Amino acid sequence: MMKHLAVIGAVFAIQLTAWAQTPQPAPQAPAASLNAASTAEANKAIAIAFYNAALNEKDWEKASKYIGSRYVQHNQAAVDGLEGIKAHIENLKKNFPLNHGEIKRTIADGDLVALHIHVKRSPDVLGFAVVDIFRIENGKVVEHWDVVQRIPEPKDVKNANTMF
Amino acid sequence: MMKHLAVIGAVFAIQLTAWAQTPQPAPQAPAASLNAASTAEANKAIAIAFYNAALNEKDWEKASKYIGSRYVQHNQAAVDGLEGIKAHIENLKKNFPLNHGEIKRTIADGDLVALHIHVKRSPDVLGFAVVDIFRIENGKVVEHWDVVQRIPEPKDVKNANTMF
Repeated sequence: MMKHLAVIGAVFAIQLTAWAQTPQPAPQAPAASLNAASTAEANKAIAIAFYNAALNEKDWEKASKYIGSRYVQHNQAAVDGLEGIKAHIENLKKNFPLNHGEIKRTIADGDLVALHIHVKRSPDVLGFAVVDIFRIENGKVVEHWDVVQRIPEPKDVKNANTMF
Repeated sequence: MMKHLAVIGAVFAIQLTAWAQTPQPAPQAPAASLNAASTAEANKAIAIAFYNAALNEKDWEKASKYIGSRYVQHNQAAVDGLEGIKAHIENLKKNFPLNHGEIKRTIADGDLVALHIHVKRSPDVLGFAVVDIFRIENGKVVEHWDVVQRIPEPKDVKNANTMF
């Protein structure tokens, strides 16, 4: 009886060991893709938080916490670096206190995040369609590109889909 | 002796059973994220191929193969649907045969692909900075937004980083 139990126990142990050593199904994509996806999601949140702090709340103190040790500026109307973005925020705060950008869609891929935004300097204007692109490095915004287009008057519009 | 072996075997079996039942580390992202990442990569290739066929090769026959059963147009200067994009390609072919868009960066996320492009109607001009956003559904382009800005003259530029 004890011998039987010993054999059963040992066989069971061997089977379980074999099961445990069987290679488990491989992930559907390499870990790099998984990390890239989660990085892009994290970067999306950082870009949105930075945009809101800077352009909507116009709070340089808060916005600057999202900026890295450098800020490569591609908006050609702004001075390079932190100085340019700080001046832009201060100008908005002083001259366009009701400036607001409504983020319509967010596209994040690797270290880049694009925000498609309806920007109005005051509530009563048509405003601008803007795409801001931010590059995020180690959780900080380090580079910025944008493209800005004035929204056309209704009389000049050829479809009813709006710019967004 | 046999009793000892039986106990050892049984304990080993129980331990292995417990190990096998212990929840294994969860994947770093759900399968949906993996699929989303590969969809975004596929969509990126489709958007680039469509852009090149339409705006660079100006080949409506080729470009139309990438378009779905509808094409929601948000460029306010174009008529909605296939008619508008076809007319735009034909206009470029006739009036701006050297029109070329150089894709500087591509950002793909889910069903959206953003292309950041330097567009020149002819080689000797400063041209435009453009972001085209395409929505891809089942491998076909079904919606288009864009933002277009004229590249400023060098005299009006405040940094040396260019718009790209």
